[in-house]
Amino acid sequence: MKKRELLYEGKAKKIYKTDDENIFIAEFKDDLTAFDAQKRSQAQGKGALNCQISAHLFKLLENHGIKTHFVECISDHEMVIKKADMIMIEIVVRNIATGSLTKRLGIPDGTVLPFALVEFYYKNDELHDPLINDEHALILELVDHESELEELKRLGREINVVLKSFFDKANLNLVDFKVEFGKDSEGNIILADEISPDSCRFWDKTSGEKLDKDLFRHDLGDVKVAYEEVLNRIQKVMS
Amino acid sequence: MKKRELLYEGKAKKIYKTDDENIFIAEFKDDLTAFDAQKRSQAQGKGALNCQISAHLFKLLENHGIKTHFVECISDHEMVIKKADMIMIEIVVRNIATGSLTKRLGIPDGTVLPFALVEFYYKNDELHDPLINDEHALILELVDHESELEELKRLGREINVVLKSFFDKANLNLVDFKVEFGKDSEGNIILADEISPDSCRFWDKTSGEKLDKDLFRHDLGDVKVAYEEVLNRIQKVMS
Ligand SMILES: Nc1ncnc2c1ncn2[C@@H]1O[C@H](COP(=O)(O)OP(=O)(O)O)[C@@H](O)[C@H]1O
Ligand SMILES: Nc1ncnc2c1ncn2[C@@H]1O[C@H](COP(=O)(O)OP(=O)(O)O)[C@@H](O)[C@H]1O
Ligand SMILES: [Mg+2]
Ligand SMILES: [Mg+2]
Repeated sequence: MKKRELLYEGKAKKIYKTDDENIFIAEFKDDLTAFDAQKRSQAQGKGALNCQISAHLFKLLENHGIKTHFVECISDHEMVIKKADMIMIEIVVRNIATGSLTKRLGIPDGTVLPFALVEFYYKNDELHDPLINDEHALILELVDHESELEELKRLGREINVVLKSFFDKANLNLVDFKVEFGKDSEGNIILADEISPDSCRFWDKTSGEKLDKDLFRHDLGDVKVAYEEVLNRIQKVMS
Repeated sequence: MKKRELLYEGKAKKIYKTDDENIFIAEFKDDLTAFDAQKRSQAQGKGALNCQISAHLFKLLENHGIKTHFVECISDHEMVIKKADMIMIEIVVRNIATGSLTKRLGIPDGTVLPFALVEFYYKNDELHDPLINDEHALILELVDHESELEELKRLGREINVVLKSFFDKANLNLVDFKVEFGKDSEGNIILADEISPDSCRFWDKTSGEKLDKDLFRHDLGDVKVAYEEVLNRIQKVMS
């Protein structure tokens, strides 16, 4: 697997081509961004932590029958992934109300939702990732068919079930998370991008302490220490 | 039918109790508000025009089998209506992209949508009527059951079919509209509130001229003249 030219540099990862046209390499960066990238910083080692956390969680999900883009890690911050034709929807699944949900709908912070809420956001930096409904997704042609929206929701909920019970064993509440999907070379919808404390919210079940990017968003503590703690707990549960 | 105490004064109407507990009187005001009521004005006679336009359209819809709260007009600006337990959702149906849709999703103004788009907004002035998806509506308990959301969408689309073909005959493009529903004393979902140039967008099919509240929103012309034109065209088609 030879790393070739840089294909795309995003806010959190660089995507490289390889000598296999169906395979990419994702390099996890130390950059931290929040609030539409208006707030920016760096935390040395953050990329490596997210790479390893993501790798563990992709493997966990694969073991539960969920197809992902994960192939293998080739360093602490580089992951070999299957090339995916990305679906430009951010799928957010929420178990507990916090963040934008509380602000938009007036639901008190910390409210346990009666069911796992699935939201679609149009992945478009210029438009600031607006919330959309199913019909918007069809009009924007973000998917080829309505049934794919149902599949995305089903996958979001399935991933939530697996991750929620896994993090429960790590004494962490999985508050919410964002996932992105794409289509592999055969047209299957596969989980892509990353699953990390940048894209999930974790609250310690005992202390309520936050162990995710909210530490950075609201200047509440050391990101690196928290992400390390998440990785340690994951490794403990896995072993 | 005796008009009793004022029950509620909204931005566009006053709702009065009557001596029949299942019947209200809606008095249409001359007030104009836009952009979350940040922009305000008055247009003498606007209330009467909206009352008469709404009455015509409610009758039209009733003739097409759609249940409404309309009973009768008792003056040019007062309408007897069935009391409804209001569903706090604004149902927006769009045929052509304009206004907030173009801004939120980057769809060019004037784009004819591939199908009638139905959107739900949480009717809540404090939260500025945020867009919601079906699951939000359930979590907020805005309806009792998921099936009611499907009924609201179906009714929105049915109303659109009737109104669109009606306004076509008046040489007006029905660009989009907002409706509100409530439950009558027997629990039936009925169309309530108003259907007027305050709650619809009408574009002249020949000139493209706007004949609705956008004139006020963007200072494009005389509201009163335009609303009168809409009423005249409605009366011509009806006769
Ligand atoms: N398997 C994959 N194939 C192709 N692109 C991918 C894959 N996984 C993730 N991506 C995309 O790689 C880009 C880089 O990630 P990131 O730095 O998070 O970007 P962004 O700033 O868009 O969030 C994202 O646009 C993401 O959708
Ligand atoms: N049939 C009805 N029964 C009870 N309330 C109604 C009915 N029709 C409309 N309403 C409500 O009357 C209120 C007054 O209307 P309006 O001035 O448009 O208020 P708003 O400022 O909330 O838009 C609105 O809250 C509307 O939902
Ligand atoms: Mg990203
Ligand atoms: Mg109103």
